[in-house]
Amino acid sequence: MTGAEGPVRWLREALGYEPRDAALFAAALTHRSAAGPNNERLEFLGDAVLNLVVAHHLYGRFPRASEGDLSRLRARVVSREPLAQVAADLKLGDMLQLGSGELRSGGFRRQSILADALEAVCGALFLDGGLPAAQQAITRLLAPRIAALPDPAMLKDAKTLLQEYLQARSLTLPHYHVERIEGEPHAQTFRVSCEVAELGLRVQGGGSSRRRAEQQAAERMLRAIAPEQAADRGP
Amino acid sequence: MTGAEGPVRWLREALGYEPRDAALFAAALTHRSAAGPNNERLEFLGDAVLNLVVAHHLYGRFPRASEGDLSRLRARVVSREPLAQVAADLKLGDMLQLGSGELRSGGFRRQSILADALEAVCGALFLDGGLPAAQQAITRLLAPRIAALPDPAMLKDAKTLLQEYLQARSLTLPHYHVERIEGEPHAQTFRVSCEVAELGLRVQGGGSSRRRAEQQAAERMLRAIAPEQAADRGP
Repeated sequence: MTGAEGPVRWLREALGYEPRDAALFAAALTHRSAAGPNNERLEFLGDAVLNLVVAHHLYGRFPRASEGDLSRLRARVVSREPLAQVAADLKLGDMLQLGSGELRSGGFRRQSILADALEAVCGALFLDGGLPAAQQAITRLLAPRIAALPDPAMLKDAKTLLQEYLQARSLTLPHYHVERIEGEPHAQTFRVSCEVAELGLRVQGGGSSRRRAEQQAAERMLRAIAPEQAADRGP
Repeated sequence: MTGAEGPVRWLREALGYEPRDAALFAAALTHRSAAGPNNERLEFLGDAVLNLVVAHHLYGRFPRASEGDLSRLRARVVSREPLAQVAADLKLGDMLQLGSGELRSGGFRRQSILADALEAVCGALFLDGGLPAAQQAITRLLAPRIAALPDPAMLKDAKTLLQEYLQARSLTLPHYHVERIEGEPHAQTFRVSCEVAELGLRVQGGGSSRRRAEQQAAERMLRAIAPEQAADRGP
């Protein structure tokens, strides 16, 4: 298989897309371990494309979900594992140009390479056909995963996840402290801090109730110490 | 000022944009501390819109910048501080609907509220006028900041930043270890781990040289322990 011919046929068959600039997709399918233009920059762009397309889709589909729930739902669709699975289903691996060292890599490493390449393909779709082309392909590819998303109300809350995360690492539990209560009694705003002393970390959260403020603080702490955990929640 | 009239005039004057759905922009300009539909969900969407528009712009403007450099450059444009400044320049604060508690908040808190509302406005622009409308407004608003971005080559590297971050917190320095070297001598791939024992964290990076692999590992470590630091770099 020479040059861009393989990728073009693959795009046509796997995504139903006819590219204008075949070289762009050849780059999207080239890992940095191989010679020639690789997919790192396209991956940067494609990550943003995927995030927007999925954010937009979820925004419409879950009109009552909070911002935090939407973030968590999105992470279930666009994080490494689901993307690698979609890439595998598309046999994207057969199209990938890899350096000799990477050919043998398996497991986690291989998953990252597949997920990154799928992101790069999304970036190439966006450059080649604009947002509509990317939107169409992404929605089609991810539809089964989006359809299988749990009810936002079933997601574990941030305080619970933070506690579980710290316990699993034998770290002391976080300390929540109400820093300030502002506003009239009927419209108060709570500012709460969350501290994990052992890690020397302290963040704040706010909300219209103490519970909400604590959840926001826990969410921020999770993002700080375990971004993947903050993203990938399950019932 | 009643209902959506103020926002509509503001959009026209500050952004040169004529909204179809004025209620959408009224929501974008309503903080959760106020009554009625607020801007939290639009902020989620707008964050993704901003990230994509700026990613696309930087991708075109810096054709030789690496993925990591592009991420760092973007963070300088779309993080809280610059967004809050843009929002202040637009007098977005005058349009904001806030609960009584929030009216008195200043400094950091006020910056977050302004930046979040600007993101929400970007989300509303996207829903109201599609990506072109958002792209036009965002590019115009952020052009001065994008023009002032440093040469990517001048950005501090991840290893240096990680070291500075840990030193400032009296933590032990990270330990880098070459885990694997693969491939033929002329096309090797290095796998390097970076460990911060005190935090119980260990990540890996890869690249075509030991130096590159270490930088990628440091980058990932920074993202894990200090997302803001990983994003906000300076020369």
